[in-house]
Amino acid sequence: MSSVTLYSYFRSSSSFRVRIALNLKEIEYEIKPIHLLKEGGEQRKDDFKNLNPMAEVPCLLHDGKYLAQSMAIIEYIDMAFAGHALFPPIPTDAAKVRQICEIINSGIQPIQNLKVLQKIEKDFGASEEVKNKWAHYWIQEGFVALEKTLEPVAGVYSHKNKLSAADCFVIPQVFNAKRFNVDMNQFPTIQKIFESCMNIPAFVKASPENQPDFEKR
Amino acid sequence: MSSVTLYSYFRSSSSFRVRIALNLKEIEYEIKPIHLLKEGGEQRKDDFKNLNPMAEVPCLLHDGKYLAQSMAIIEYIDMAFAGHALFPPIPTDAAKVRQICEIINSGIQPIQNLKVLQKIEKDFGASEEVKNKWAHYWIQEGFVALEKTLEPVAGVYSHKNKLSAADCFVIPQVFNAKRFNVDMNQFPTIQKIFESCMNIPAFVKASPENQPDFEKR
Repeated sequence: MSSVTLYSYFRSSSSFRVRIALNLKEIEYEIKPIHLLKEGGEQRKDDFKNLNPMAEVPCLLHDGKYLAQSMAIIEYIDMAFAGHALFPPIPTDAAKVRQICEIINSGIQPIQNLKVLQKIEKDFGASEEVKNKWAHYWIQEGFVALEKTLEPVAGVYSHKNKLSAADCFVIPQVFNAKRFNVDMNQFPTIQKIFESCMNIPAFVKASPENQPDFEKR
Repeated sequence: MSSVTLYSYFRSSSSFRVRIALNLKEIEYEIKPIHLLKEGGEQRKDDFKNLNPMAEVPCLLHDGKYLAQSMAIIEYIDMAFAGHALFPPIPTDAAKVRQICEIINSGIQPIQNLKVLQKIEKDFGASEEVKNKWAHYWIQEGFVALEKTLEPVAGVYSHKNKLSAADCFVIPQVFNAKRFNVDMNQFPTIQKIFESCMNIPAFVKASPENQPDFEKR
């Protein structure tokens, strides 16, 4: 019997992506919460850094092997497990799905994430307000491009009418957008995809507020 | 006859990744240089943004279809073209290769790239020296984790003794590291991989100084 454990933080959008993918594949998994803020961050402790030297969640443990980086994990899940395919079979379609994933994975989220916000506070004395403005800027810029990229390929979901890895990335980034007060009315395609997905149990179950480590602010 | 065009900038490490991958696959391609600094950046002009709304290189044109994001392009090249496989066939090995790619693709490069450096200058008045320190910090932090990740899996190359997508990402990031004066003596595994790869024509031919748009500083 195969065993899957996900090291996750409820508010981490990268963890959220993998939770959705695991749910879409109907894979049973145990959550090990890693608190990114408690005591300087549990992800920075040696125990965890031995599993993932980047000191980040998510990290997946499958049959004794550790794997990090949400995109690598989602590709792996798709290869290693049966069930709903997360990438379309036609190479140009699969490439478009990966392009959408990467706009978020490498183009938006890394620049607005916790450690960059902590760094601009430390180096430039950025206040809460300035940090929020920074995150807002990168999500806003990125969503203008994401909306334009999605327009010609979206159906009910990010890529036509089939759930894909792209949806695993888009939905958590919309949660971040809302958190940083990005006006979603500017992005009707993204907003429509968000509404479609949030009707699906795999997405609802993966949401921050339904995690064992959820905390109200 | 299939036709491949790469929109590229000689110094862009993300373009460099794709140039290596195309060379490893022995695919013939035409380079269309996009100058990231001239006249506020050719990548921000409408003509180019219609191809890639993120206003970034690389962008690949293959048989009339445009594709952006280096990771998506490299996965596509590997699927669509014969020749040297860029990912190992065993899922856990492929996952490790993708993890190495993503440490650089989403974990290091996005935070030290041109537009973030321009933004900290604009928002916080960062000088040339402060911008260089910022880039140095993220590459240094990332390389500590990358070295630890590579140690148990590297052979002559990033993943054992076979060239893979991981090498397409590692080598350009070492060029960035050197540019920002990161001391490579701290990272013997990365340095050894760098030396192995830079003996291979696919890597040499893809290097910034061998591009048609190369400019001396």
